[in-house]
Amino acid sequence: MARRNDHSRSEIHQMALEAARAIVREEGLSGLSVRKIATRIGYTGGTLYLVFRNLDDLILQLNAQTLEQLHTCLVSALQGCQGVEQCLLALARGYVRFAHDERPLWDALYSVRLAADEALPEGYQARVDALFGLVEQALAPLHGAEQRRLASHVLWGGIHGITRLALDDKLDLAGPTRPEALTESLVVNYLRGLAAG
Amino acid sequence: MARRNDHSRSEIHQMALEAARAIVREEGLSGLSVRKIATRIGYTGGTLYLVFRNLDDLILQLNAQTLEQLHTCLVSALQGCQGVEQCLLALARGYVRFAHDERPLWDALYSVRLAADEALPEGYQARVDALFGLVEQALAPLHGAEQRRLASHVLWGGIHGITRLALDDKLDLAGPTRPEALTESLVVNYLRGLAAG
Repeated sequence: MARRNDHSRSEIHQMALEAARAIVREEGLSGLSVRKIATRIGYTGGTLYLVFRNLDDLILQLNAQTLEQLHTCLVSALQGCQGVEQCLLALARGYVRFAHDERPLWDALYSVRLAADEALPEGYQARVDALFGLVEQALAPLHGAEQRRLASHVLWGGIHGITRLALDDKLDLAGPTRPEALTESLVVNYLRGLAAG
Repeated sequence: MARRNDHSRSEIHQMALEAARAIVREEGLSGLSVRKIATRIGYTGGTLYLVFRNLDDLILQLNAQTLEQLHTCLVSALQGCQGVEQCLLALARGYVRFAHDERPLWDALYSVRLAADEALPEGYQARVDALFGLVEQALAPLHGAEQRRLASHVLWGGIHGITRLALDDKLDLAGPTRPEALTESLVVNYLRGLAAG
Protein backbone atom coordinates (compact mmCIF):
# COMPACT_ATOMS: atom_id res chain seq x y z
CA MET A 1 0.00 0.00 0.00
CA ALA A 2 1.39 3.39 -0.96
CA ARG A 3 2.01 5.78 1.87
CA ARG A 4 0.23 9.05 1.74
CA ASN A 5 2.09 12.01 3.08
CA ASP A 6 -0.29 14.76 2.21
CA HIS A 7 -1.90 15.25 5.62
CA SER A 8 -0.81 17.17 8.66
CA ARG A 9 -0.41 15.50 12.04
CA SER A 10 -3.65 16.98 13.24
CA GLU A 11 -5.49 15.86 10.10
CA ILE A 12 -4.22 12.30 10.57
CA HIS A 13 -5.29 12.51 14.23
CA GLN A 14 -8.81 13.46 13.21
CA MET A 15 -9.01 10.95 10.34
CA ALA A 16 -7.91 8.15 12.66
CA LEU A 17 -10.57 9.04 15.23
CA GLU A 18 -13.24 9.12 12.53
CA ALA A 19 -12.11 5.76 11.17
CA ALA A 20 -12.08 4.33 14.71
CA ARG A 21 -15.61 5.59 15.32
CA ALA A 22 -16.82 3.94 12.11
CA ILE A 23 -15.15 0.63 12.97
CA VAL A 24 -16.56 0.62 16.53
CA ARG A 25 -20.02 1.37 15.17
CA GLU A 26 -19.76 -1.50 12.69
CA GLU A 27 -17.91 -4.13 14.71
CA GLY A 28 -17.89 -3.00 18.32
CA LEU A 29 -14.84 -2.10 20.37
CA SER A 30 -13.49 -5.64 20.17
CA GLY A 31 -13.22 -5.25 16.39
CA LEU A 32 -10.96 -2.20 16.68
CA SER A 33 -7.24 -2.48 15.94
CA VAL A 34 -4.46 -0.10 14.95
CA ARG A 35 -4.02 -2.10 11.76
CA LYS A 36 -7.67 -1.67 10.73
CA ILE A 37 -7.64 2.05 11.42
CA ALA A 38 -4.39 2.48 9.48
CA THR A 39 -5.73 0.52 6.50
CA ARG A 40 -8.89 2.58 6.43
CA ILE A 41 -7.09 5.91 6.32
CA GLY A 42 -4.30 4.72 4.02
CA TYR A 43 -1.40 5.09 6.44
CA THR A 44 0.77 2.56 8.24
CA GLY A 45 0.34 1.62 11.87
CA GLY A 46 3.68 3.32 12.52
CA THR A 47 2.20 6.67 11.51
CA LEU A 48 -0.61 6.24 14.03
CA TYR A 49 1.92 5.74 16.80
CA LEU A 50 3.29 9.17 16.00
CA VAL A 51 -0.11 10.66 16.80
CA PHE A 52 -1.41 8.37 19.59
CA ARG A 53 0.52 6.76 22.45
CA ASN A 54 -1.23 3.44 21.91
CA LEU A 55 -4.65 1.98 21.09
CA ASP A 56 -5.97 2.75 24.60
CA ASP A 57 -5.02 6.39 24.18
CA LEU A 58 -6.87 6.45 20.86
CA ILE A 59 -9.96 4.83 22.42
CA LEU A 60 -9.95 7.36 25.27
CA GLN A 61 -9.84 10.20 22.77
CA LEU A 62 -12.68 8.57 20.86
CA ASN A 63 -14.61 8.31 24.13
CA ALA A 64 -14.00 11.99 24.80
CA GLN A 65 -15.74 12.75 21.50
CA THR A 66 -18.57 10.37 22.41
CA LEU A 67 -19.04 12.20 25.73
CA GLU A 68 -19.37 15.43 23.78
CA GLN A 69 -21.90 13.82 21.44
CA LEU A 70 -23.89 12.56 24.44
CA HIS A 71 -23.77 16.05 25.95
CA THR A 72 -25.21 17.52 22.75
CA CYS A 73 -28.01 14.93 22.75
CA LEU A 74 -28.87 15.63 26.38
CA VAL A 75 -28.87 19.40 25.91
CA SER A 76 -31.25 18.89 23.01
CA ALA A 77 -33.43 16.53 25.11
CA LEU A 78 -33.72 19.29 27.73
CA GLN A 79 -35.17 21.79 25.25
CA GLY A 80 -38.41 23.22 26.53
CA CYS A 81 -38.62 21.13 29.70
CA GLN A 82 -39.77 22.80 32.90
CA GLY A 83 -39.40 21.81 36.51
CA VAL A 84 -37.13 19.25 38.16
CA GLU A 85 -39.14 16.15 37.33
CA GLN A 86 -39.77 16.99 33.70
CA CYS A 87 -36.12 17.91 33.08
CA LEU A 88 -34.78 14.79 34.79
CA LEU A 89 -37.18 12.56 32.88
CA ALA A 90 -35.97 14.23 29.67
CA LEU A 91 -32.35 13.55 30.64
CA ALA A 92 -33.12 9.93 31.53
CA ARG A 93 -34.93 9.34 28.23
CA GLY A 94 -32.13 11.06 26.34
CA TYR A 95 -29.54 8.82 27.99
CA VAL A 96 -31.49 5.63 27.29
CA ARG A 97 -32.05 6.67 23.67
CA PHE A 98 -28.38 7.51 23.15
CA ALA A 99 -27.30 4.15 24.59
CA HIS A 100 -29.77 2.42 22.29
CA ASP A 101 -28.89 4.38 19.14
CA GLU A 102 -25.12 4.41 19.67
CA ARG A 103 -24.72 1.19 21.54
CA PRO A 104 -21.15 0.25 20.52
CA LEU A 105 -19.88 3.78 21.28
CA TRP A 106 -21.77 3.78 24.59
CA ASP A 107 -20.31 0.36 25.46
CA ALA A 108 -16.85 1.69 24.65
CA LEU A 109 -17.32 4.53 27.17
CA TYR A 110 -17.49 1.99 29.97
CA SER A 111 -15.05 -0.59 28.60
CA VAL A 112 -11.77 1.18 29.09
CA ARG A 113 -9.89 0.86 32.34
CA LEU A 114 -7.02 3.21 32.99
CA ALA A 115 -3.74 1.74 34.17
CA ALA A 116 -2.75 3.22 37.54
CA ASP A 117 -0.02 5.37 36.00
CA GLU A 118 -2.07 6.53 33.03
CA ALA A 119 -3.56 9.99 32.82
CA LEU A 120 -6.84 10.91 31.14
CA PRO A 121 -6.57 12.78 27.85
CA GLU A 122 -6.75 16.54 28.14
CA GLY A 123 -10.30 17.76 28.56
CA TYR A 124 -11.72 14.32 29.40
CA GLN A 125 -12.58 15.07 33.00
CA ALA A 126 -14.13 18.38 31.95
CA ARG A 127 -16.46 16.52 29.60
CA VAL A 128 -17.55 14.12 32.37
CA ASP A 129 -18.12 17.09 34.66
CA ALA A 130 -20.19 18.84 31.99
CA LEU A 131 -22.52 15.84 31.80
CA PHE A 132 -23.00 15.76 35.57
CA GLY A 133 -23.44 19.49 35.41
CA LEU A 134 -26.60 19.00 33.33
CA VAL A 135 -28.06 16.69 35.96
CA GLU A 136 -27.05 18.90 38.88
CA GLN A 137 -28.47 21.94 37.12
CA ALA A 138 -31.79 20.14 36.64
CA LEU A 139 -31.71 19.33 40.35
CA ALA A 140 -30.93 22.94 41.28
CA PRO A 141 -34.22 23.69 43.06
CA LEU A 142 -33.44 20.84 45.48
CA HIS A 143 -31.54 21.35 48.71
CA GLY A 144 -27.79 21.96 48.90
CA ALA A 145 -24.91 21.27 46.56
CA GLU A 146 -23.86 18.15 48.47
CA GLN A 147 -27.27 16.53 48.14
CA ARG A 148 -27.55 17.48 44.47
CA ARG A 149 -24.18 15.91 43.86
CA LEU A 150 -25.19 12.69 45.58
CA ALA A 151 -28.55 12.64 43.78
CA SER A 152 -26.95 13.16 40.37
CA HIS A 153 -24.78 10.09 40.94
CA VAL A 154 -27.65 7.96 42.24
CA LEU A 155 -29.75 8.84 39.19
CA TRP A 156 -26.89 8.24 36.79
CA GLY A 157 -26.02 4.87 38.35
CA GLY A 158 -29.66 3.83 38.49
CA ILE A 159 -30.58 4.82 34.93
CA HIS A 160 -27.32 3.34 33.70
CA GLY A 161 -28.03 0.01 35.40
CA ILE A 162 -31.54 -0.27 33.99
CA THR A 163 -30.26 0.68 30.52
CA ARG A 164 -27.44 -1.84 30.71
CA LEU A 165 -29.78 -4.66 31.71
CA ALA A 166 -32.32 -3.70 29.05
CA LEU A 167 -29.74 -3.62 26.24
CA ASP A 168 -28.26 -6.93 27.39
CA ASP A 169 -31.74 -8.49 27.33
CA LYS A 170 -31.53 -9.23 31.03
CA LEU A 171 -34.81 -7.55 31.90
CA ASP A 172 -36.69 -10.13 29.85
CA LEU A 173 -35.34 -12.85 32.08
CA ALA A 174 -36.69 -10.97 35.05
CA GLY A 175 -40.12 -10.50 33.46
CA PRO A 176 -41.55 -8.38 30.70
CA THR A 177 -40.87 -5.01 32.26
CA ARG A 178 -40.32 -2.10 29.89
CA PRO A 179 -37.15 -0.12 30.66
CA GLU A 180 -38.98 3.17 30.06
CA ALA A 181 -41.44 2.35 32.86
CA LEU A 182 -38.53 1.50 35.15
CA THR A 183 -36.54 4.67 34.52
CA GLU A 184 -39.65 6.80 34.91
CA SER A 185 -40.55 5.11 38.20
CA LEU A 186 -36.98 5.61 39.42
CA VAL A 187 -36.86 9.32 38.58
CA VAL A 188 -40.36 10.22 39.77
CA ASN A 189 -40.22 8.36 43.08
CA TYR A 190 -36.62 9.19 43.91
CA LEU A 191 -37.33 12.89 43.40
CA ARG A 192 -40.53 12.67 45.41
CA GLY A 193 -38.55 11.02 48.20
CA LEU A 194 -35.89 13.73 48.12
CA ALA A 195 -38.51 16.46 48.22
CA ALA A 196 -40.22 14.79 51.20
CA GLY A 197 -36.92 14.22 53.04
CA MET B 1 -2.67 -38.04 30.67
CA ALA B 2 -4.39 -41.21 31.76
CA ARG B 3 -8.15 -41.31 31.48
CA ARG B 4 -10.08 -41.86 34.66
CA ASN B 5 -13.23 -43.86 34.35
CA ASP B 6 -14.17 -44.20 37.96
CA HIS B 7 -16.83 -41.47 38.14
CA SER B 8 -20.50 -41.48 37.24
CA ARG B 9 -21.93 -39.02 34.75
CA SER B 10 -23.44 -36.98 37.53
CA GLU B 11 -20.16 -36.94 39.46
CA ILE B 12 -18.31 -35.71 36.37
CA HIS B 13 -21.02 -33.09 35.92
CA GLN B 14 -20.50 -31.82 39.45
CA MET B 15 -16.69 -32.00 39.29
CA ALA B 16 -16.70 -30.00 36.06
CA LEU B 17 -18.89 -27.27 37.57
CA GLU B 18 -16.64 -27.07 40.63
CA ALA B 19 -13.54 -26.84 38.44
CA ALA B 20 -15.21 -24.17 36.30
CA ARG B 21 -16.10 -22.16 39.40
CA ALA B 22 -12.49 -22.31 40.61
CA ILE B 23 -11.14 -21.24 37.20
CA VAL B 24 -13.61 -18.33 36.90
CA ARG B 25 -12.68 -17.19 40.42
CA GLU B 26 -8.98 -17.28 39.55
CA GLU B 27 -8.96 -16.03 35.98
CA GLY B 28 -12.39 -14.61 35.23
CA LEU B 29 -14.86 -15.95 32.68
CA SER B 30 -12.54 -15.14 29.78
CA GLY B 31 -10.02 -17.60 31.23
CA LEU B 32 -12.49 -20.49 31.13
CA SER B 33 -12.19 -23.20 28.49
CA VAL B 34 -13.34 -26.79 28.09
CA ARG B 35 -9.69 -27.84 27.89
CA LYS B 36 -8.80 -26.21 31.22
CA ILE B 37 -11.78 -27.76 32.98
CA ALA B 38 -10.98 -31.18 31.52
CA THR B 39 -7.33 -30.95 32.56
CA ARG B 40 -8.28 -29.97 36.08
CA ILE B 41 -10.59 -32.92 36.61
CA GLY B 42 -8.42 -35.42 34.74
CA TYR B 43 -10.79 -36.16 31.88
CA THR B 44 -10.71 -35.29 28.18
CA GLY B 45 -12.74 -32.52 26.62
CA GLY B 46 -14.71 -35.23 24.82
CA THR B 47 -16.00 -36.52 28.14
CA LEU B 48 -17.27 -33.08 29.06
CA TYR B 49 -19.28 -32.91 25.85
CA LEU B 50 -21.11 -36.03 27.00
CA VAL B 51 -22.29 -34.12 30.06
CA PHE B 52 -22.72 -30.53 28.72
CA ARG B 53 -24.00 -29.41 25.33
CA ASN B 54 -21.22 -26.86 25.02
CA LEU B 55 -19.26 -24.31 27.07
CA ASP B 56 -22.21 -21.89 27.16
CA ASP B 57 -24.41 -24.60 28.62
CA LEU B 58 -21.78 -25.27 31.28
CA ILE B 59 -21.52 -21.55 32.11
CA LEU B 60 -25.29 -21.25 32.42
CA GLN B 61 -25.33 -24.17 34.84
CA LEU B 62 -22.51 -22.52 36.77
CA ASN B 63 -24.54 -19.30 36.83
CA ALA B 64 -27.54 -21.22 38.16
CA GLN B 65 -25.40 -22.28 41.11
CA THR B 66 -24.18 -18.70 41.57
CA LEU B 67 -27.79 -17.48 41.68
CA GLU B 68 -28.43 -19.99 44.45
CA GLN B 69 -25.34 -18.81 46.32
CA LEU B 70 -26.52 -15.18 45.98
CA HIS B 71 -29.95 -16.20 47.25
CA THR B 72 -28.38 -17.79 50.34
CA CYS B 73 -26.33 -14.61 50.98
CA LEU B 74 -29.40 -12.39 50.64
CA VAL B 75 -31.53 -14.57 52.91
CA SER B 76 -28.78 -14.36 55.48
CA ALA B 77 -28.53 -10.55 55.00
CA LEU B 78 -32.26 -10.30 55.77
CA GLN B 79 -31.88 -12.01 59.16
CA GLY B 80 -33.41 -9.88 61.89
CA CYS B 81 -34.38 -6.92 59.69
CA GLN B 82 -37.71 -5.23 60.27
CA GLY B 83 -39.77 -2.96 58.06
CA VAL B 84 -39.58 -2.27 54.35
CA GLU B 85 -36.67 0.18 54.44
CA GLN B 86 -34.46 -1.86 56.74
CA CYS B 87 -35.03 -5.06 54.77
CA LEU B 88 -34.39 -3.42 51.40
CA LEU B 89 -31.23 -1.76 52.68
CA ALA B 90 -30.09 -5.18 53.90
CA LEU B 91 -30.79 -6.69 50.47
CA ALA B 92 -28.96 -3.84 48.70
CA ARG B 93 -25.92 -4.18 50.96
CA GLY B 94 -25.98 -7.94 50.54
CA TYR B 95 -26.02 -7.60 46.75
CA VAL B 96 -23.17 -5.09 46.71
CA ARG B 97 -21.12 -7.25 49.07
CA PHE B 98 -21.71 -10.38 47.00
CA ALA B 99 -20.68 -8.58 43.80
CA HIS B 100 -17.54 -7.35 45.55
CA ASP B 101 -16.59 -10.68 47.16
CA GLU B 102 -17.44 -12.88 44.18
CA ARG B 103 -16.77 -10.46 41.39
CA PRO B 104 -15.79 -12.91 38.61
CA LEU B 105 -18.82 -15.11 39.33
CA TRP B 106 -21.07 -12.03 39.49
CA ASP B 107 -19.63 -10.79 36.18
CA ALA B 108 -20.31 -14.19 34.64
CA LEU B 109 -23.99 -13.91 35.61
CA TYR B 110 -24.36 -10.96 33.29
CA SER B 111 -21.92 -12.01 30.57
CA VAL B 112 -23.83 -14.80 28.91
CA ARG B 113 -26.26 -14.09 26.12
CA LEU B 114 -28.60 -16.80 25.04
CA ALA B 115 -28.89 -17.53 21.34
CA ALA B 116 -32.46 -17.06 20.14
CA ASP B 117 -33.06 -20.80 19.87
CA GLU B 118 -31.41 -21.71 23.15
CA ALA B 119 -33.37 -22.60 26.26
CA LEU B 120 -32.35 -21.84 29.83
CA PRO B 121 -31.19 -24.82 31.89
CA GLU B 122 -33.85 -26.46 34.01
CA GLY B 123 -34.57 -24.50 37.16
CA TYR B 124 -32.74 -21.34 36.02
CA GLN B 125 -35.83 -19.17 35.73
CA ALA B 126 -37.04 -20.42 39.10
CA ARG B 127 -33.80 -19.22 40.69
CA VAL B 128 -34.15 -15.77 39.14
CA ASP B 129 -37.76 -15.64 40.34
CA ALA B 130 -36.68 -16.65 43.85
CA LEU B 131 -34.29 -13.67 43.99
CA PHE B 132 -36.98 -11.22 42.89
CA GLY B 133 -39.28 -12.92 45.35
CA LEU B 134 -37.04 -11.75 48.19
CA VAL B 135 -37.31 -8.14 47.02
CA GLU B 136 -41.05 -8.32 46.39
CA GLN B 137 -41.58 -9.90 49.80
CA ALA B 138 -39.64 -7.08 51.45
CA LEU B 139 -41.87 -4.65 49.54
CA ALA B 140 -45.04 -6.50 50.62
CA PRO B 141 -46.48 -3.72 52.81
CA LEU B 142 -46.47 -1.44 49.75
CA HIS B 143 -49.42 -1.15 47.38
CA GLY B 144 -50.41 -3.83 44.88
CA ALA B 145 -48.55 -6.70 43.23
CA GLU B 146 -48.04 -4.74 40.01
CA GLN B 147 -46.32 -1.86 41.77
CA ARG B 148 -44.19 -4.18 43.89
CA ARG B 149 -43.10 -5.96 40.74
CA LEU B 150 -42.12 -2.68 39.06
CA ALA B 151 -40.37 -1.45 42.21
CA SER B 152 -38.37 -4.65 42.59
CA HIS B 153 -37.02 -4.21 39.06
CA VAL B 154 -36.24 -0.51 39.53
CA LEU B 155 -34.32 -1.26 42.72
CA TRP B 156 -32.47 -4.17 41.16
CA GLY B 157 -31.51 -2.15 38.07
CA GLY B 158 -30.51 0.84 40.16
CA ILE B 159 -28.40 -1.02 42.71
CA HIS B 160 -26.90 -3.11 39.92
CA GLY B 161 -25.88 0.00 37.99
CA ILE B 162 -24.23 1.67 40.97
CA THR B 163 -22.44 -1.58 41.85
CA ARG B 164 -21.25 -2.06 38.29
CA LEU B 165 -19.86 1.49 38.08
CA ALA B 166 -18.22 1.18 41.50
CA LEU B 167 -16.49 -2.11 40.69
CA ASP B 168 -15.34 -0.77 37.31
CA ASP B 169 -13.85 2.29 39.05
CA LYS B 170 -16.16 4.58 37.10
CA LEU B 171 -17.54 6.37 40.14
CA ASP B 172 -14.09 7.80 40.88
CA LEU B 173 -14.11 9.52 37.54
CA ALA B 174 -17.41 11.11 38.45
CA GLY B 175 -16.19 12.27 41.85
CA PRO B 176 -15.35 10.63 45.15
CA THR B 177 -18.81 9.30 45.93
CA ARG B 178 -19.00 6.14 48.01
CA PRO B 179 -21.22 3.46 46.46
CA GLU B 180 -22.72 2.66 49.88
CA ALA B 181 -23.99 6.23 50.19
CA LEU B 182 -25.47 6.02 46.69
CA THR B 183 -27.32 2.74 47.20
CA GLU B 184 -28.65 3.94 50.56
CA SER B 185 -29.88 7.21 49.05
CA LEU B 186 -31.53 5.28 46.22
CA VAL B 187 -33.36 2.84 48.49
CA VAL B 188 -34.43 5.36 51.14
CA ASN B 189 -35.69 8.05 48.77
CA TYR B 190 -37.26 5.71 46.25
CA LEU B 191 -39.24 4.01 49.01
CA ARG B 192 -40.23 7.35 50.51
CA GLY B 193 -41.45 8.43 47.07
CA LEU B 194 -43.47 5.24 46.64
CA ALA B 195 -45.04 5.65 50.06
CA ALA B 196 -45.96 9.26 49.27
CA GLY B 197 -47.33 8.37 45.81
